[in-house]
Amino acid sequence: TMSTVNKTAHAFDKTRLDALLNRRFFYAPAFEIYGGVAGLYDYGPPGSSLQANIIAEWRRHFIIEESMLEVDTTIITPSPVFETSGHVARFADWMVKDTVNGEVLRADHLVKNVLEARLEGDREARGVAAAPAAPAPADKKKKKQAKTTAVKLEDAVVAEYESILAQLDNYSGPELGGLMKTHAITNPSSGNPVGEPQQFNLMFASSIGPTGQHPGFLRPETAQGHFLNFARLLEFNNGRVPFASAQVGRAFRNEISPRAGLLRVREFTMAEIEHYVDPLDKKHVRFADVADLELVLLDKFVQAAGQTTTKRMTVGQAVKEGVIANETLGYFVARIYLFLVRIGINKTRLRFRQHMANEMAHYASDCWDAEIQNSIGGWTECVGCADRAAYDLSVHAAKTKQPLVVRQALKEPLIEERAVAEFDKKVLGKTFKGDAGVVSAAVEALDEAGMMKLKGELEQGPATITADRKEFTLQSGMLTIERKTFKTNVREFTPNVIEPSFGIGRILYCLLEHSFWSREQDVERGVLSLPAVVAPTKVLIVPLSARAEFDPLVQEVSLRFRKAGVHARVDDSNTSIGKRYARNDELGTPFGVTLDFASVQNRTMTLRERDTMDQRIGSIEDVIATVTELVNGSIDWAEACQRLPAYDGVQAVE
Amino acid sequence: TMSTVNKTAHAFDKTRLDALLNRRFFYAPAFEIYGGVAGLYDYGPPGSSLQANIIAEWRRHFIIEESMLEVDTTIITPSPVFETSGHVARFADWMVKDTVNGEVLRADHLVKNVLEARLEGDREARGVAAAPAAPAPADKKKKKQAKTTAVKLEDAVVAEYESILAQLDNYSGPELGGLMKTHAITNPSSGNPVGEPQQFNLMFASSIGPTGQHPGFLRPETAQGHFLNFARLLEFNNGRVPFASAQVGRAFRNEISPRAGLLRVREFTMAEIEHYVDPLDKKHVRFADVADLELVLLDKFVQAAGQTTTKRMTVGQAVKEGVIANETLGYFVARIYLFLVRIGINKTRLRFRQHMANEMAHYASDCWDAEIQNSIGGWTECVGCADRAAYDLSVHAAKTKQPLVVRQALKEPLIEERAVAEFDKKVLGKTFKGDAGVVSAAVEALDEAGMMKLKGELEQGPATITADRKEFTLQSGMLTIERKTFKTNVREFTPNVIEPSFGIGRILYCLLEHSFWSREQDVERGVLSLPAVVAPTKVLIVPLSARAEFDPLVQEVSLRFRKAGVHARVDDSNTSIGKRYARNDELGTPFGVTLDFASVQNRTMTLRERDTMDQRIGSIEDVIATVTELVNGSIDWAEACQRLPAYDGVQAVE
Repeated sequence: TMSTVNKTAHAFDKTRLDALLNRRFFYAPAFEIYGGVAGLYDYGPPGSSLQANIIAEWRRHFIIEESMLEVDTTIITPSPVFETSGHVARFADWMVKDTVNGEVLRADHLVKNVLEARLEGDREARGVAAAPAAPAPADKKKKKQAKTTAVKLEDAVVAEYESILAQLDNYSGPELGGLMKTHAITNPSSGNPVGEPQQFNLMFASSIGPTGQHPGFLRPETAQGHFLNFARLLEFNNGRVPFASAQVGRAFRNEISPRAGLLRVREFTMAEIEHYVDPLDKKHVRFADVADLELVLLDKFVQAAGQTTTKRMTVGQAVKEGVIANETLGYFVARIYLFLVRIGINKTRLRFRQHMANEMAHYASDCWDAEIQNSIGGWTECVGCADRAAYDLSVHAAKTKQPLVVRQALKEPLIEERAVAEFDKKVLGKTFKGDAGVVSAAVEALDEAGMMKLKGELEQGPATITADRKEFTLQSGMLTIERKTFKTNVREFTPNVIEPSFGIGRILYCLLEHSFWSREQDVERGVLSLPAVVAPTKVLIVPLSARAEFDPLVQEVSLRFRKAGVHARVDDSNTSIGKRYARNDELGTPFGVTLDFASVQNRTMTLRERDTMDQRIGSIEDVIATVTELVNGSIDWAEACQRLPAYDGVQAVE
Repeated sequence: TMSTVNKTAHAFDKTRLDALLNRRFFYAPAFEIYGGVAGLYDYGPPGSSLQANIIAEWRRHFIIEESMLEVDTTIITPSPVFETSGHVARFADWMVKDTVNGEVLRADHLVKNVLEARLEGDREARGVAAAPAAPAPADKKKKKQAKTTAVKLEDAVVAEYESILAQLDNYSGPELGGLMKTHAITNPSSGNPVGEPQQFNLMFASSIGPTGQHPGFLRPETAQGHFLNFARLLEFNNGRVPFASAQVGRAFRNEISPRAGLLRVREFTMAEIEHYVDPLDKKHVRFADVADLELVLLDKFVQAAGQTTTKRMTVGQAVKEGVIANETLGYFVARIYLFLVRIGINKTRLRFRQHMANEMAHYASDCWDAEIQNSIGGWTECVGCADRAAYDLSVHAAKTKQPLVVRQALKEPLIEERAVAEFDKKVLGKTFKGDAGVVSAAVEALDEAGMMKLKGELEQGPATITADRKEFTLQSGMLTIERKTFKTNVREFTPNVIEPSFGIGRILYCLLEHSFWSREQDVERGVLSLPAVVAPTKVLIVPLSARAEFDPLVQEVSLRFRKAGVHARVDDSNTSIGKRYARNDELGTPFGVTLDFASVQNRTMTLRERDTMDQRIGSIEDVIATVTELVNGSIDWAEACQRLPAYDGVQAVE
């Protein structure tokens, strides 16, 4: 006889959620008493615990279950590393300046905000209400948001705006500048025109050491720390691929004007996996475990056509049809899905979107984002899953001359025939003197076709070759070119990297939105239905009052929960049991146990479930055992109800 | 019949330990393939796990067991915060420059290194071997270390040097400069003279936002993040003190020339507690639990006398005799001790040293360091336990005008008589015009004595008061001063803060030193005897070979360990079982189970203990149950030996 709960009696209300998160100190603007700084947030006790539990589950789901190699690398990074990786040159956003007041705006956000506001105004003018399923079109209270005015647009203009918005991430800076001119886009907060888009590098700069001799940056991702340690990690893994490294840590991006709560911040916690795989074999040994999982996909072709129509298909199908490039990428997309759903993300508000060609980071060859729908950003990237190919390892190896490669013993030796040059070094030296080395290197650098062409030319007479921007004349006596057979037992290759990269703060915020609802009978009573696995506290222990006679039992029950590995907290504050439970509904605490006079006399305890508010009763031992199984996920509330009788609110006390 | 083990057959050899830590990738210089940067290290898989386990145990021991409020605040901090806290002005070290080659040296380290080298040379000249209990006098291979030459010193000089070294942390910069002149201290690596000591601020600077408008710093401690959120935390705790906030996170110090491995780094993980307590009541409710714990203490009076003699006493005694200032400080000192010993720090190499007056950080009123003895730094501060008094909350409250106070309802109202002024505002306004407010504020700011003095003067005739650097003449008609009785039901106070602050990397390094030894029969076979609670991996699963017939059993045993919450790893690499175990002795893995043909046939498994190398045998179920209890600490190896028979190396296989 479990109660049913209506969680959708009241429409989602972001203002109420924000008030709850602020009141219960899930998080708050950092340096609030100093006026705050945009894009920096501190987590309070429930937010910290929620974050720690999400990370613990991430470690269990990925690192432990897949035996990944965890690393913990530094945030401060000397400049040469990011020069090599391409971040110094290319890790930038396009910004524009208000030509009158100097306000700085992110170019793509400006286009998006203005066109969306015009479309909204058009809908108003046509008398069309926003579709109920669509996310609320961003928080209207934000002063910087473009204002909506009810002006009807031509049908063709509406179609054009929609097409621009569907492929917004695909425009270059100059193209965004062009859009602003064509569509008369100005700064909505001032009405002033804006200048040409300019690049702004998003890395925070600092310098290392007392004399400022080493310029450095705060990492904008944890990935480079994995790559620089690749040779050590490979050795730790006995020289074998595939394997993965994993890291949870802070990263920093000096966002131009962050105004989207936890969705766009300047300092954030990431969890990143770098999975190293043979480029010739991107199969995954556990792919069959996930092949039948059905996902919602938005591929790049659909978007490039200006559409946002998604497709449902299994991961197996998607890889088979080439929608997802390979098994390993597909495997991780599926594992990301399973993780997000497990911690409580609503699966109907989760989709995977493929990056378009121009949108892709400079290092990626294919990329799928897990996008989670929310009221601030609509569909928002919360996890990226990129195939970085051999980019990073190759550029670092080239720069440092360290071999970041896998050497693989071949079962069958590899036999290969190719043209090689043999030089008469004496003649070469006499003829070219100091340039002899340059000349022979230039010949050796020729590809198979070039080598055979040179061989043909030399058979006819002298031939010329360009080296070091000079021309040299070769004679047949200086070298001979022959095709020879080579046999090797070792294959050497730079592995490709598949990178699932999680923005923990974004996931955490979306989870809070998806978990929030108000009680049917009272809209003021908010609840966060967080799953037990991530809930900040699993059980609230509520003594009837702070009277000393309850102390021994409170101590005993606390200790028993601690020994069972269940995180419990005591609330003996001087307020009614109902108020204490209501407070913990807001904190997402899934279970509560009450200790009263009957508990002291009969050693019984009542157990309350957060969502239904149902109460059951049992011996202290039985209730603790039941809660332990509920929290570990080995039983659900319906099963718990079969073990413990309902509590009718009356207990015999002598 | 447990084997005994001789762990001290070979003297501690730092070179061997370093080789092991490097070979097994516990940690390595960050950006190694780019040549590295001093003071920055990356942790590899075993180092990351060891660190994660130390932090998890820290969370259990402090946050969970004491119901602390965890927070997670930002690293990037706007400049005004550190201007208020005093870090911009005073968070600095004294450095000197080589007057010829410009090399930068930390002033106190220079004095220490040179004097220690001279004392060492004196001992050599006198033919005195270093006492065996004393730490090795730092790694002699380091090129910057002052060289030792055997020169005998006068007895008085030896005494003077020893006295200087005992109170080294107590000298100001100019005093260090004086010592360098008096004792002819030059740069040991060049022989050149050095200049006057100058202050160098240790914070890394950066700037926030696209136009560089907000200067900021990377936090050098996590503490300010707690203090700025004090009002929210107090509210979360229902307005009551004492309570504590806790945070684990990165901090940054731009060290002048770090050359002591993990002991002195530019980026590090801290774990900090800020315990807020009534300044009038620093008792601790759980003090009795630790009062009988005996500690080794080195107090400030002993050090100021140029001595380093420690005293053993119980915490109860120390607080009673005023050696440790109050119960709360004593409670945390004891809890720090229990934590360090639990994770494996050798209790005979752990002491608590009190800070001397000049040594104390600018914010502290009393401070005890947990010092752990090691071969690099001798006795090294690994945990600080400071009484920051009301310093931080007061300065931030004064700067931001936010009340960072506790308001406490009084059981008995507080009755107080004090002099107050009442003004005739009309007369005051007519007389002083725009200055009327300034004048009345100046009167109200007077203390009791000043107020009564003014009252007396006015009774005699006109009186003058200075306000805003001007003099004003007051007449008796303008105001009356009377003593009145006030009754309040609320007491308002700024809490004091007791701060235990842990340097996780330093603790981790000392733990590695304390855990390392070589097998009696073979000095090349190193072992890390890490306790199971922090060991990177708890159990190694070793199939006889990678043959497919072992796979189902390997899967089963792995899954059973995972379900029991025991972190196990499979090593099916293509090498002998002995080599695989030797590798895991180096990784500190406390237990190993072997799966062979008998396991397949009889479902038995052998269990190996790392330190003794003893092997026992039992059913798969019994071995897993025994290991689970060993790892949870509910039984020890002697008890395990009573449950499982010894393995004689032979198993019946049909």
